Amino acid sequence: MTIQEFVKEGMKLEEAIELPFSTREKFAPRNTILTDYHQLEDSVYFIRSGIMITSLLYKEEERILDFHFPNSFVGSYSSLLTKSPSDVRLKCYKDCDLEIINYAELLSTYKTSLLANQIGRMATEQLFLSRVTREKELLTMNAEERYQSLLKKNPDLVKTIPVKELSKYLGIRPESLSRIRKG
Amino acid sequence: MTIQEFVKEGMKLEEAIELPFSTREKFAPRNTILTDYHQLEDSVYFIRSGIMITSLLYKEEERILDFHFPNSFVGSYSSLLTKSPSDVRLKCYKDCDLEIINYAELLSTYKTSLLANQIGRMATEQLFLSRVTREKELLTMNAEERYQSLLKKNPDLVKTIPVKELSKYLGIRPESLSRIRKG
Repeated sequence: MTIQEFVKEGMKLEEAIELPFSTREKFAPRNTILTDYHQLEDSVYFIRSGIMITSLLYKEEERILDFHFPNSFVGSYSSLLTKSPSDVRLKCYKDCDLEIINYAELLSTYKTSLLANQIGRMATEQLFLSRVTREKELLTMNAEERYQSLLKKNPDLVKTIPVKELSKYLGIRPESLSRIRKG
Repeated sequence: MTIQEFVKEGMKLEEAIELPFSTREKFAPRNTILTDYHQLEDSVYFIRSGIMITSLLYKEEERILDFHFPNSFVGSYSSLLTKSPSDVRLKCYKDCDLEIINYAELLSTYKTSLLANQIGRMATEQLFLSRVTREKELLTMNAEERYQSLLKKNPDLVKTIPVKELSKYLGIRPESLSRIRKG
């Protein structure tokens, strides 16, 4: 899916419309770091195909914030919105076909374009919903339940993620995850 | 602060502007439930003064998602955005002076008003940032560190919250919190 198609679907339009900002396409192979820790973010990424991960460091230990799948926006939003260095890393977990929006251009479009603001609001609402869902999981489920939830949502992905990465996402030690998997 | 003043500040305007939607004021005493579990949300609340809490149930146990302070928007957004029954409860933790936006009216304003979309986008971005911050805390800090973080942000509040409520926020047993407090 392209951003244009995503907007058509998300805004329930009958026909695709011309976007009020430019986008550029990019192929980023597996393990490409698009935004690194302490870097100032300048773009918003849309995943056409592939998987990305966002991670953060805490006490020199890496934790995976989330896996990101096709047809979703990814970016170091805290860095964009607060103009501060990124506390997360955006990395391609698989080969990715991306569409990229320059944030400075987007901001300038926001000043006058109704459509740009409608798109920005809709995309932000979806991102907000996904964060709220993840937060509720973190608050109510233990690691085993979160593993089962991820397994249910993305069985194919879970099979391909090494125990080491998956345990960084669940916030537990690899040995504990191995026990859960066997259980 | 009023919504009008919040918009002026958030959008860095030189003068306050007329809002493109109507709002109504409401005083809600302590313990008022504004939105309950399984209810369809129809409003967005702005806290002028007071404190609200959002909570959710998991396996018949209540967990506090967050405390909400003056000059912020609160609502069961998952219910609003997905038109499904609310999985959270919005309750006044202290007496609250609120300003209320009717969501149906807001949605209709979104269709044509640049300003309404700019305000909606800005407010959603701020909500998103607060969720991301909380999520990062849940993912990287243990209960004691989250307690210290809350204490640092809102020392006065923490003094007034009973151990029972605070432990629902931290996701630990009241006895564990008592140990942390003494430690």
